[in-house]
Amino acid sequence: MSGTAARYADWLAVAVEEARAGRAEGGVPIGAALVGRDGRVLGRGHNRRVQDGDPSAHGETAAFRAAGRQRSYTGTTMVTTLSPCWYCSGLVRQFGISRVVVGEARTFHGGHDWLAEHGVEVVLLDDPGCVRMMTDFIAAEPALWNEDIGVD
Amino acid sequence: MSGTAARYADWLAVAVEEARAGRAEGGVPIGAALVGRDGRVLGRGHNRRVQDGDPSAHGETAAFRAAGRQRSYTGTTMVTTLSPCWYCSGLVRQFGISRVVVGEARTFHGGHDWLAEHGVEVVLLDDPGCVRMMTDFIAAEPALWNEDIGVD
Repeated sequence: MSGTAARYADWLAVAVEEARAGRAEGGVPIGAALVGRDGRVLGRGHNRRVQDGDPSAHGETAAFRAAGRQRSYTGTTMVTTLSPCWYCSGLVRQFGISRVVVGEARTFHGGHDWLAEHGVEVVLLDDPGCVRMMTDFIAAEPALWNEDIGVD
Repeated sequence: MSGTAARYADWLAVAVEEARAGRAEGGVPIGAALVGRDGRVLGRGHNRRVQDGDPSAHGETAAFRAAGRQRSYTGTTMVTTLSPCWYCSGLVRQFGISRVVVGEARTFHGGHDWLAEHGVEVVLLDDPGCVRMMTDFIAAEPALWNEDIGVD
Protein backbone atom coordinates (compact mmCIF):
# COMPACT_ATOMS: atom_id res chain seq x y z
CA MET A 1 0.00 0.00 0.00
CA SER A 2 1.40 3.41 -0.94
CA GLY A 3 1.87 6.09 1.72
CA THR A 4 -1.12 7.99 0.40
CA ALA A 5 -3.36 4.91 0.37
CA ALA A 6 -2.27 4.05 3.91
CA ARG A 7 -3.11 7.57 5.03
CA TYR A 8 -6.58 7.37 3.49
CA ALA A 9 -7.12 3.97 5.14
CA ASP A 10 -6.14 5.44 8.52
CA TRP A 11 -8.57 8.30 8.09
CA LEU A 12 -11.35 5.97 6.96
CA ALA A 13 -10.75 3.86 10.06
CA VAL A 14 -11.65 6.90 12.18
CA ALA A 15 -14.87 7.41 10.23
CA VAL A 16 -15.74 3.70 10.51
CA GLU A 17 -15.15 3.81 14.27
CA GLU A 18 -17.62 6.69 14.46
CA ALA A 19 -20.17 4.86 12.29
CA ARG A 20 -19.95 1.76 14.48
CA ALA A 21 -20.37 3.82 17.63
CA GLY A 22 -23.49 5.34 16.10
CA ARG A 23 -24.93 1.94 15.25
CA ALA A 24 -24.18 0.68 18.77
CA GLU A 25 -26.23 3.61 20.08
CA GLY A 26 -29.16 2.54 17.88
CA GLY A 27 -28.51 5.15 15.25
CA VAL A 28 -27.69 5.44 11.55
CA PRO A 29 -24.16 4.04 10.98
CA ILE A 30 -22.49 6.85 9.08
CA GLY A 31 -19.34 8.44 10.44
CA ALA A 32 -16.94 11.10 9.27
CA ALA A 33 -13.91 13.14 10.21
CA LEU A 34 -12.52 16.47 9.08
CA VAL A 35 -8.77 16.21 8.66
CA GLY A 36 -6.47 19.22 8.60
CA ARG A 37 -3.85 19.90 5.97
CA ASP A 38 -1.26 18.47 8.39
CA GLY A 39 -3.16 15.16 8.58
CA ARG A 40 -4.41 15.77 12.10
CA VAL A 41 -8.09 15.06 12.81
CA LEU A 42 -9.79 18.40 13.51
CA GLY A 43 -13.18 16.93 14.32
CA ARG A 44 -15.01 13.61 14.10
CA GLY A 45 -18.59 12.56 14.51
CA HIS A 46 -21.49 10.39 13.43
CA ASN A 47 -25.11 10.66 12.48
CA ARG A 48 -27.21 11.53 15.55
CA ARG A 49 -30.76 11.57 14.14
CA VAL A 50 -31.95 8.89 16.56
CA GLN A 51 -29.71 9.66 19.53
CA ASP A 52 -30.46 13.40 19.68
CA GLY A 53 -33.68 13.52 17.66
CA ASP A 54 -31.65 15.82 15.43
CA PRO A 55 -32.18 15.44 11.68
CA SER A 56 -29.44 18.00 10.95
CA ALA A 57 -26.71 15.84 12.49
CA HIS A 58 -25.32 13.82 9.62
CA GLY A 59 -21.87 12.26 9.96
CA GLU A 60 -20.16 14.98 7.95
CA THR A 61 -21.97 17.89 9.60
CA ALA A 62 -21.24 16.40 13.03
CA ALA A 63 -17.52 16.19 12.20
CA PHE A 64 -17.55 19.73 10.77
CA ARG A 65 -19.28 21.00 13.91
CA ALA A 66 -16.87 19.17 16.22
CA ALA A 67 -13.94 20.86 14.47
CA GLY A 68 -15.28 24.24 15.57
CA ARG A 69 -14.71 27.54 13.81
CA GLN A 70 -11.92 27.48 11.26
CA ARG A 71 -10.63 30.46 9.34
CA SER A 72 -10.03 28.38 6.21
CA TYR A 73 -10.77 24.88 4.94
CA THR A 74 -8.20 24.97 2.17
CA GLY A 75 -6.20 21.76 2.28
CA THR A 76 -8.64 19.97 4.57
CA THR A 77 -10.18 16.55 3.84
CA MET A 78 -13.61 15.25 4.78
CA VAL A 79 -13.45 11.48 5.14
CA THR A 80 -16.80 9.74 5.33
CA THR A 81 -18.00 6.14 5.34
CA LEU A 82 -20.65 6.88 2.67
CA SER A 83 -21.05 9.09 -0.39
CA PRO A 84 -22.12 12.49 0.96
CA CYS A 85 -25.78 13.42 0.44
CA TRP A 86 -26.65 16.79 -1.14
CA TYR A 87 -26.76 18.44 2.28
CA CYS A 88 -23.26 17.26 3.15
CA SER A 89 -21.97 17.82 -0.39
CA GLY A 90 -23.24 21.39 -0.16
CA LEU A 91 -21.31 21.78 3.09
CA VAL A 92 -18.09 20.65 1.39
CA ARG A 93 -18.58 22.99 -1.57
CA GLN A 94 -19.62 26.05 0.44
CA PHE A 95 -16.72 25.90 2.85
CA GLY A 96 -14.10 25.01 0.27
CA ILE A 97 -13.06 21.69 1.79
CA SER A 98 -10.41 20.51 -0.67
CA ARG A 99 -10.81 16.75 -0.65
CA VAL A 100 -13.44 14.13 0.12
CA VAL A 101 -12.46 10.54 0.86
CA VAL A 102 -15.52 8.30 0.47
CA GLY A 103 -15.76 4.83 1.99
CA GLU A 104 -18.34 3.62 -0.51
CA ALA A 105 -21.00 4.81 -2.94
CA ARG A 106 -22.74 1.51 -3.77
CA THR A 107 -25.57 1.69 -1.24
CA PHE A 108 -26.16 5.44 -1.75
CA HIS A 109 -24.95 7.73 -4.50
CA GLY A 110 -24.88 11.31 -3.22
CA GLY A 111 -23.22 14.43 -4.59
CA HIS A 112 -19.60 13.35 -4.93
CA ASP A 113 -19.61 13.59 -8.76
CA TRP A 114 -20.96 17.14 -8.47
CA LEU A 115 -18.17 17.96 -6.03
CA ALA A 116 -15.56 16.58 -8.44
CA GLU A 117 -17.04 18.74 -11.23
CA HIS A 118 -16.60 21.75 -8.96
CA GLY A 119 -12.94 21.15 -8.23
CA VAL A 120 -13.04 19.01 -5.09
CA GLU A 121 -10.63 16.07 -5.13
CA VAL A 122 -12.78 12.98 -4.66
CA VAL A 123 -11.26 9.66 -3.61
CA LEU A 124 -13.65 6.72 -3.72
CA LEU A 125 -12.24 3.80 -1.72
CA ASP A 126 -15.04 1.29 -2.41
CA ASP A 127 -14.42 -0.34 0.95
CA PRO A 128 -16.20 -3.71 1.39
CA GLY A 129 -16.59 -3.22 5.15
CA CYS A 130 -18.41 0.07 4.60
CA VAL A 131 -20.68 -1.54 1.99
CA ARG A 132 -21.53 -4.37 4.39
CA MET A 133 -22.25 -2.01 7.28
CA MET A 134 -24.76 0.02 5.22
CA THR A 135 -26.29 -3.01 3.50
CA ASP A 136 -26.99 -4.61 6.89
CA PHE A 137 -28.38 -1.36 8.29
CA ILE A 138 -30.68 -0.66 5.33
CA ALA A 139 -32.03 -4.22 5.49
CA ALA A 140 -32.67 -3.90 9.24
CA GLU A 141 -34.06 -0.34 9.31
CA PRO A 142 -35.46 0.69 5.92
CA ALA A 143 -37.86 3.32 7.31
CA LEU A 144 -35.14 5.00 9.37
CA TRP A 145 -32.82 5.05 6.38
CA ASN A 146 -35.46 6.60 4.13
CA GLU A 147 -36.16 9.23 6.75
CA ASP A 148 -32.48 10.09 6.95
CA ILE A 149 -32.23 10.79 3.23
CA GLY A 150 -35.62 12.46 2.86
CA VAL A 151 -37.33 9.68 0.91
CA ASP A 152 -41.09 9.73 1.53
CA MET B 1 -51.36 42.44 -1.29
CA SER B 2 -52.70 39.04 -2.35
CA GLY B 3 -53.35 36.33 0.22
CA THR B 4 -50.28 34.45 -0.95
CA ALA B 5 -48.05 37.52 -0.78
CA ALA B 6 -49.35 38.33 2.70
CA ARG B 7 -48.59 34.79 3.80
CA TYR B 8 -45.02 35.00 2.51
CA ALA B 9 -44.61 38.38 4.23
CA ASP B 10 -45.81 36.85 7.51
CA TRP B 11 -43.33 33.99 7.20
CA LEU B 12 -40.50 36.34 6.29
CA ALA B 13 -41.30 38.39 9.39
CA VAL B 14 -40.53 35.31 11.51
CA ALA B 15 -37.18 34.84 9.75
CA VAL B 16 -36.35 38.54 10.15
CA GLU B 17 -37.18 38.37 13.86
CA GLU B 18 -34.73 35.47 14.15
CA ALA B 19 -32.04 37.33 12.19
CA ARG B 20 -32.40 40.40 14.40
CA ALA B 21 -32.18 38.29 17.55
CA GLY B 22 -28.96 36.79 16.18
CA ARG B 23 -27.47 40.22 15.49
CA ALA B 24 -28.46 41.41 18.97
CA GLU B 25 -26.48 38.45 20.36
CA GLY B 26 -23.42 39.57 18.38
CA GLY B 27 -23.92 37.00 15.65
CA VAL B 28 -24.50 36.77 11.92
CA PRO B 29 -27.98 38.20 11.13
CA ILE B 30 -29.52 35.40 9.10
CA GLY B 31 -32.74 33.80 10.22
CA ALA B 32 -35.07 31.16 8.87
CA ALA B 33 -38.15 29.11 9.58
CA LEU B 34 -39.47 25.80 8.32
CA VAL B 35 -43.18 26.07 7.65
CA GLY B 36 -45.47 23.07 7.40
CA ARG B 37 -47.94 22.45 4.60
CA ASP B 38 -50.67 23.85 6.87
CA GLY B 39 -48.78 27.14 7.24
CA ARG B 40 -47.75 26.46 10.82
CA VAL B 41 -44.12 27.15 11.78
CA LEU B 42 -42.48 23.79 12.52
CA GLY B 43 -39.14 25.25 13.57
CA ARG B 44 -37.31 28.58 13.54
CA GLY B 45 -33.75 29.62 14.17
CA HIS B 46 -30.81 31.80 13.32
CA ASN B 47 -27.13 31.55 12.59
CA ARG B 48 -25.23 30.63 15.77
CA ARG B 49 -21.60 30.61 14.60
CA VAL B 50 -20.55 33.24 17.12
CA GLN B 51 -22.98 32.43 19.93
CA ASP B 52 -22.23 28.68 20.07
CA GLY B 53 -18.89 28.60 18.26
CA ASP B 54 -20.78 26.34 15.85
CA PRO B 55 -20.01 26.77 12.16
CA SER B 56 -22.69 24.23 11.22
CA ALA B 57 -25.53 26.36 12.62
CA HIS B 58 -26.74 28.43 9.69
CA GLY B 59 -30.19 29.99 9.84
CA GLU B 60 -31.77 27.30 7.68
CA THR B 61 -30.06 24.36 9.40
CA ALA B 62 -31.01 25.79 12.81
CA ALA B 63 -34.68 26.02 11.74
CA PHE B 64 -34.56 22.51 10.27
CA ARG B 65 -33.04 21.18 13.48
CA ALA B 66 -35.59 22.98 15.66
CA ALA B 67 -38.40 21.31 13.70
CA GLY B 68 -37.12 17.92 14.85
CA ARG B 69 -37.58 14.66 12.98
CA GLN B 70 -40.21 14.77 10.25
CA ARG B 71 -41.35 11.83 8.20
CA SER B 72 -41.78 13.94 5.08
CA TYR B 73 -40.95 17.46 3.93
CA THR B 74 -43.35 17.41 0.99
CA GLY B 75 -45.35 20.63 1.03
CA THR B 76 -43.05 22.38 3.50
CA THR B 77 -41.47 25.79 2.93
CA MET B 78 -38.11 27.08 4.11
CA VAL B 79 -38.28 30.85 4.51
CA THR B 80 -34.94 32.58 4.96
CA THR B 81 -33.76 36.17 5.09
CA LEU B 82 -30.94 35.49 2.59
CA SER B 83 -30.36 33.32 -0.48
CA PRO B 84 -29.37 29.89 0.88
CA CYS B 85 -25.69 28.99 0.58
CA TRP B 86 -24.71 25.63 -1.00
CA TYR B 87 -24.82 23.93 2.37
CA CYS B 88 -28.38 25.09 3.06
CA SER B 89 -29.44 24.59 -0.57
CA GLY B 90 -28.19 21.02 -0.32
CA LEU B 91 -30.32 20.58 2.79
CA VAL B 92 -33.41 21.73 0.91
CA ARG B 93 -32.73 19.44 -2.04
CA GLN B 94 -31.83 16.36 -0.02
CA PHE B 95 -34.88 16.47 2.20
CA GLY B 96 -37.34 17.40 -0.53
CA ILE B 97 -38.45 20.70 0.98
CA SER B 98 -40.95 21.92 -1.62
CA ARG B 99 -40.57 25.68 -1.52
CA VAL B 100 -37.98 28.28 -0.53
CA VAL B 101 -39.00 31.86 0.19
CA VAL B 102 -35.91 34.09 0.05
CA GLY B 103 -35.77 37.55 1.65
CA GLU B 104 -33.05 38.79 -0.67
CA ALA B 105 -30.24 37.65 -2.95
CA ARG B 106 -28.48 40.97 -3.63
CA THR B 107 -25.79 40.74 -0.93
CA PHE B 108 -25.18 37.00 -1.47
CA HIS B 109 -26.21 34.74 -4.32
CA GLY B 110 -26.35 31.15 -3.09
CA GLY B 111 -27.93 28.07 -4.63
CA HIS B 112 -31.52 29.16 -5.18
CA ASP B 113 -31.26 28.99 -9.01
CA TRP B 114 -29.96 25.43 -8.69
CA LEU B 115 -32.87 24.55 -6.45
CA ALA B 116 -35.32 25.98 -8.99
CA GLU B 117 -33.67 23.85 -11.71
CA HIS B 118 -34.26 20.81 -9.53
CA GLY B 119 -37.95 21.42 -9.03
CA VAL B 120 -38.05 23.48 -5.84
CA GLU B 121 -40.46 26.43 -5.99
CA VAL B 122 -38.33 29.51 -5.32
CA VAL B 123 -39.91 32.82 -4.33
CA LEU B 124 -37.52 35.76 -4.23
CA LEU B 125 -39.06 38.65 -2.27
CA ASP B 126 -36.22 41.17 -2.73
CA ASP B 127 -37.06 42.75 0.59
CA PRO B 128 -35.32 46.11 1.20
CA GLY B 129 -35.17 45.54 4.96
CA CYS B 130 -33.30 42.26 4.48
CA VAL B 131 -30.88 43.92 2.04
CA ARG B 132 -30.19 46.71 4.54
CA MET B 133 -29.65 44.28 7.42
CA MET B 134 -27.01 42.31 5.50
CA THR B 135 -25.38 45.37 3.93
CA ASP B 136 -24.90 46.91 7.38
CA PHE B 137 -23.60 43.63 8.80
CA ILE B 138 -21.12 42.98 5.99
CA ALA B 139 -19.78 46.53 6.29
CA ALA B 140 -19.37 46.15 10.06
CA GLU B 141 -18.00 42.59 10.17
CA PRO B 142 -16.39 41.63 6.85
CA ALA B 143 -14.08 38.96 8.34
CA LEU B 144 -16.92 37.25 10.21
CA TRP B 145 -19.05 37.25 7.07
CA ASN B 146 -16.27 35.74 4.97
CA GLU B 147 -15.73 33.07 7.60
CA ASP B 148 -19.43 32.20 7.54
CA ILE B 149 -19.44 31.58 3.79
CA GLY B 150 -16.03 29.92 3.62
CA VAL B 151 -14.21 32.73 1.82
CA ASP B 152 -10.50 32.66 2.71
